[in-house]
Amino acid sequence: MVDPKLLDETAAGVFTIAATPFLPDGALDLESIDTMVDFYEAKGATGLTILGMMGEAGKLSAKESSIVIDRVTTRASVPVVVGVSAAGLAAIKALTDTAMERAAAGVMVAPPSTLRTDDQIIGYFQMVAEVLGDVPWVLQDFPLITDVQISPRVIRTIMDTCPTCVMLKHEDWPGLEKISTLRKHEAEGARRISILCGNGGMFLLEEMIRGADGAMTGFAYPEMMADVARLMKAGEEARARDLFDAYLPLMRYEQQPGLGLAIRKHILAKRGAIAHATVRRPGTVLSPATIAEVETLIARQDARLAALA
Amino acid sequence: MVDPKLLDETAAGVFTIAATPFLPDGALDLESIDTMVDFYEAKGATGLTILGMMGEAGKLSAKESSIVIDRVTTRASVPVVVGVSAAGLAAIKALTDTAMERAAAGVMVAPPSTLRTDDQIIGYFQMVAEVLGDVPWVLQDFPLITDVQISPRVIRTIMDTCPTCVMLKHEDWPGLEKISTLRKHEAEGARRISILCGNGGMFLLEEMIRGADGAMTGFAYPEMMADVARLMKAGEEARARDLFDAYLPLMRYEQQPGLGLAIRKHILAKRGAIAHATVRRPGTVLSPATIAEVETLIARQDARLAALA
Amino acid sequence: MVDPKLLDETAAGVFTIAATPFLPDGALDLESIDTMVDFYEAKGATGLTILGMMGEAGKLSAKESSIVIDRVTTRASVPVVVGVSAAGLAAIKALTDTAMERAAAGVMVAPPSTLRTDDQIIGYFQMVAEVLGDVPWVLQDFPLITDVQISPRVIRTIMDTCPTCVMLKHEDWPGLEKISTLRKHEAEGARRISILCGNGGMFLLEEMIRGADGAMTGFAYPEMMADVARLMKAGEEARARDLFDAYLPLMRYEQQPGLGLAIRKHILAKRGAIAHATVRRPGTVLSPATIAEVETLIARQDARLAALA
Amino acid sequence: MVDPKLLDETAAGVFTIAATPFLPDGALDLESIDTMVDFYEAKGATGLTILGMMGEAGKLSAKESSIVIDRVTTRASVPVVVGVSAAGLAAIKALTDTAMERAAAGVMVAPPSTLRTDDQIIGYFQMVAEVLGDVPWVLQDFPLITDVQISPRVIRTIMDTCPTCVMLKHEDWPGLEKISTLRKHEAEGARRISILCGNGGMFLLEEMIRGADGAMTGFAYPEMMADVARLMKAGEEARARDLFDAYLPLMRYEQQPGLGLAIRKHILAKRGAIAHATVRRPGTVLSPATIAEVETLIARQDARLAALA
Repeated sequence: MVDPKLLDETAAGVFTIAATPFLPDGALDLESIDTMVDFYEAKGATGLTILGMMGEAGKLSAKESSIVIDRVTTRASVPVVVGVSAAGLAAIKALTDTAMERAAAGVMVAPPSTLRTDDQIIGYFQMVAEVLGDVPWVLQDFPLITDVQISPRVIRTIMDTCPTCVMLKHEDWPGLEKISTLRKHEAEGARRISILCGNGGMFLLEEMIRGADGAMTGFAYPEMMADVARLMKAGEEARARDLFDAYLPLMRYEQQPGLGLAIRKHILAKRGAIAHATVRRPGTVLSPATIAEVETLIARQDARLAALA
Repeated sequence: MVDPKLLDETAAGVFTIAATPFLPDGALDLESIDTMVDFYEAKGATGLTILGMMGEAGKLSAKESSIVIDRVTTRASVPVVVGVSAAGLAAIKALTDTAMERAAAGVMVAPPSTLRTDDQIIGYFQMVAEVLGDVPWVLQDFPLITDVQISPRVIRTIMDTCPTCVMLKHEDWPGLEKISTLRKHEAEGARRISILCGNGGMFLLEEMIRGADGAMTGFAYPEMMADVARLMKAGEEARARDLFDAYLPLMRYEQQPGLGLAIRKHILAKRGAIAHATVRRPGTVLSPATIAEVETLIARQDARLAALA
Repeated sequence: MVDPKLLDETAAGVFTIAATPFLPDGALDLESIDTMVDFYEAKGATGLTILGMMGEAGKLSAKESSIVIDRVTTRASVPVVVGVSAAGLAAIKALTDTAMERAAAGVMVAPPSTLRTDDQIIGYFQMVAEVLGDVPWVLQDFPLITDVQISPRVIRTIMDTCPTCVMLKHEDWPGLEKISTLRKHEAEGARRISILCGNGGMFLLEEMIRGADGAMTGFAYPEMMADVARLMKAGEEARARDLFDAYLPLMRYEQQPGLGLAIRKHILAKRGAIAHATVRRPGTVLSPATIAEVETLIARQDARLAALA
Repeated sequence: MVDPKLLDETAAGVFTIAATPFLPDGALDLESIDTMVDFYEAKGATGLTILGMMGEAGKLSAKESSIVIDRVTTRASVPVVVGVSAAGLAAIKALTDTAMERAAAGVMVAPPSTLRTDDQIIGYFQMVAEVLGDVPWVLQDFPLITDVQISPRVIRTIMDTCPTCVMLKHEDWPGLEKISTLRKHEAEGARRISILCGNGGMFLLEEMIRGADGAMTGFAYPEMMADVARLMKAGEEARARDLFDAYLPLMRYEQQPGLGLAIRKHILAKRGAIAHATVRRPGTVLSPATIAEVETLIARQDARLAALA
C-alpha cells in the first residue's frame, strides 16, 4: 500500500515555499514555525516546501536543518517537500534520509550551476534518482538562479528514465511555452507529472491556462494562489483575473531578487504568521522607504480586494 | 551657445527605447521608422533612444545602423540618444561620430560583461569619456544583462570625473535604494544627473517616488510612462497608481526576457506604429497561445482604462 | 572546379591566429601586417586566422576590419580564415561577404554566450550555415570565453546537417576526450572534419595523439607548432616532446588570460614580425617585472633549443 | 602565550591541498588519510589544507567533514587549515567550531559567487571575520571558480580592518601583478600577510620572485613546491627553474579543470600515498588514453629529474 502522504503526480493547489523564522538575534524561532505552518494551512496551502532557496537553507547548519524538518513535519497536516540540493550526492542523500525519517512527502533537487550540456543535466539527475532510491522527488527548474537551462526534451528524458521524479517545480522565465510543450508530450504518451509554478506567482494565471497544477512559491498571501488555482480549475477565469490583478502590484514588488525575502518576512510578521521579520546574515534589512512602499501597496490591495468581495 | 538639442541633466519624461522595424523578409522597414517615430511622439515621448539592446542593435550591420540613425534623427522632433556599446573604443567612437553628425542628442554606453571590480568599471567609463570628447552620454546600468554591478559610489566617482556623463539609464533590479542613494549624494553636493528608468516600466511608480526623472524603456504604451511621470510630478500619486495598476498585467507579460521584444512589436504593429511585427533572426516567433494571452490582457486593460476615464 | 584556396576538411599544420598590429597611437599599422604575414609564413604557418578574439577584432571599426582583411589576403600565400562572430546574422553575413570578396578561404564563428541547451546551439549554427550559403566555415569551440559548452554529440549533429562546416577550432579545456570521441564518430561513419587546436598550444602534443590535425593558435613561436605537428605526423614523438617541453615555460606564461596578448605582441615585436607591441585600448600594458620575466624565459628557451639542435 | 600551532602571517613553504581519500565504494578511507598525511609531510609539506574545493568538500556530509578534520589533525604534525566556505555564516561558524576544537591552525574562506562590487566583497569578509572571532583565517582568492574578482585595494581594506586575516590563498590568473602590488602596500606601511599560491603550482617560480611565501596547492609532487620555494629563498634561481621546468609538463596536464582531481588521485595512489584513486560521484573517471598520457609524462619527468640530480 502506498503511504498516502508520499508525493505523487496528482499534487495540485499551493505548495507554499515556507520561510525559516528567526529570532532577532538570528537563532531559529521554533514557535514561529508552528504559527507559520498553521497560517499557511489556514490560507489554503495544500502542501509545504521547506529548506528551499527562499527558506535560507544555505544559511543553516546541518543540525539546524534537521531541527526545522522535524518541527515542520510534526506540525503540518499537509505534505511537506524538503529542499535537499547540495554540491554532492552524499550530502543530498544524508539530508534526504533525515527528511524521510521525519515523514516528509518527498524532496526537491536543483541542478548545480556547473551543468551545461543536455547530457550533463540528464546524467546528473539520473545519478540523483539512483541515490534517492524510491523517494519521490521534485525537479527544480530555476535558470535565473542556477544558470542551468533545461529544455523540454531533457525534462522528458529525465521523466522517462526516472520514475520517482513526480513533479516539476517550474520557475523558468519565460516559461509558459515550456509548460505547453510538456503537456503536449503527455498528450503524446509521456508519463504525467505534476507541474507547480514559482516566480513569486507573477505568471500563475497564464501558467494555469497552459496546464500547470498550481503554484509552489512563497508570496506572502498564499490565499491568492489557492483562490486563483481553484477559480481557474472551476473555469471562472474572469474572477481569477480580477483577484490576480488585485494582488499583482504587491507581487511585483515582493519579487525583487535579494530584497524579496525580507519583504516577504515583513508581511508574514505583520500578518501574524511569524513573530519576527529577521533575515539571517548575510541578508537584507529593509529601509524605511521600502517599508513605506510595502505598506502603501498593502493598503491599496486591501481596498481593491474589499471592492471585489 | 549650447545646442538646444544636446542631452543634458535636465532630461525628463519618457525617452522611449525605439524598436527597429523590419519587413517580413528581415530587411529594414524605413517607412515604419517614420510612423513609429510619429507614434512615439504622439503618445508623449520626450525623447527617443535607438540601437539599444531592445532595438536589435546587435543584429544590424554597420551600414544599417547608420541608416537607422539617419532616418530617426531626420524624422524626430525630440532628442535622440543612440546606443553605441561595443567591445572596443574604436567602434564606440566610429558609431558616435556617425550619430553626432546626424544630430543625435547624445549616446548611451553599457559596460562590457568582463568588468568586475570598482576600479575596472571606473577606468572603463573614464576611457569612454575621453574617447567621446565633448559628446554628452548616458551610463547604462543593466546588471541582469551585462552581469556588471555598479555601486552608487562608483557611479558617483564616474559623475565626479566625467562631466560629459549627464544621465543614468537605471535598470538595476532591485534598484530603488540606488536611486535614493544617488539623490542623497546630490543633496550632499554631488553634481545632479538625470535618472531615467528601465525594467519595462515595472517599477516606475516607486522610481519616481525615489527621485527618478522619468522612464527610458520600450513598453508598447508610452502614454502610460508619460502619464505616470506627469501625474507623479504633479503630486497626484493616487491617480498615477490607478493608471499604473491598469497597465501592470500587460507590462508584466511584456517584460519576459527574450520573449518581450516580440510581444512589444506585436502590440506596436497592432497599434499601427509599425507595419510588421517581424523580429530579426535569431529571434522569437510568438505562438498562438502567447498571442491569445496578449490579446486578453489588452482587452482587460482597455476596459479598465475606460473605467478610470 | 573547386577553388584551390577554399578551406576544406584536409586543412592541417598551423593556422596562426594573427595579431592585429597597431602604431603607438593606436592606428592600424599596415606595413606591419605585411611583415607579420611574411614572418608567420616563414615560420611554417600553413594558414592564417584573422579577426579572432586574440586579434582584437572587437576593437576595430567595421571599416578597419575590412582594411585588415584586404591587406592580409593580398599579402598571404596561404589560406586565410576570417573570424566573423557577431551578435546577429546580418553582421555575420556582411563581414563574410567582405571576407570572401577578398579571397578569404573561409570564416570562423563562435557561439553567442547566451546559448545553453543542445537545441539552442544546434539551431544557432544551422541558421549560421544557412546564412553563409556555400562559404566553408569553422566552428569555434572555446567555452572558457564563450561560456557555451558544446558536447561531441552536438558537434556531430552540426556536422551531419551543415556540410559547409569543415573544421573545428578546438579550444575546450579539458578537451582531449572530445577529440577522441569525434574521431571515433568518424570511424563509425561520420563525415571527417579538420580539427585544429587552440589553448595557446599548451596541449598540442596530446591533441595530436588524440587525432588533431594541428594547431590554430597564436603562440609567438609558430615554428614550435609547425615542428611538433610535423614530427608527430612523422611518428617522432620523443623529438616532438623534447621540442614541446623546451617551449612550454614560455607558452605557459603567454597563456595568461588578458595578459597573454600583450606578451605575444611584445615577443612578435622583439622578433621583428611587427614594428610595435601596442595593444589597443582597453588593453594591458606590460610592467617592467613582466617584461623581465618574459626575457628570462626567452633566454632559457633559446639555450634549451640550442642544446637540442 | 600564543598557541604555537595557530596560523599566522609567517606561514611559508608548502601547505598542500589535501585530497580526501575514498574506498572504491565511495566511503571515506580513513587509513589512507593517515598514509596521505605522512606522505605529504615526508615530501616537505609545512602545512596541510583540507576540505578545500579540490578536497571534494562539497561532496561530504557534515558528519563526514567532521570525521576528516578529526583524523587529519590527529595525525598531522604540521598546521592544518580547514576550508569552511559555505552559503551562510551559520554553517561557516559551525564548521569552524568543529575545526578549532580539533586543533586546526585556522580556517579558509572563499567568497560566494554572488558578490560583485568592492563594497559587497569587503562587507562579506568583515562579517565573516566578526563571526569567526579570534580564529585566524585565510582569504581564498580564486576568480576562475568563484567568479569574484578581488582587487588589491579591496584585499588591503580587508587586511586593514580584519586583523585575524593572516594569509592570502592567491589563485588569481593572471595574478603576478597582484602579488607585487600587495607587497608594495606592505612596503608603504600595510600589515604583512602570508601569501601562498595555488593554480596547481603553474606560476610558483614567478610568484616567488614577486614576493610570495610559497605554495598552497595540491600538485601530486609536493616536493617540487617545497624545493622550488626553498631554492628561491636561498637565491638559487637557476636551479629552481631547472627543477620547475622538469615538473612543468605534468603540472600542466594535472591542471586541467574538472579532470585534474582524478589525475592527482591517480598519481597519489601510484605513489602509495592513498590506497585508491576513487573520486566520489559526481566525478570524473580517467580514460585509458588519459592514464597512458599521465604515465608517459611521469616517465619523462623521472628521467629529467635523474639527469638534474
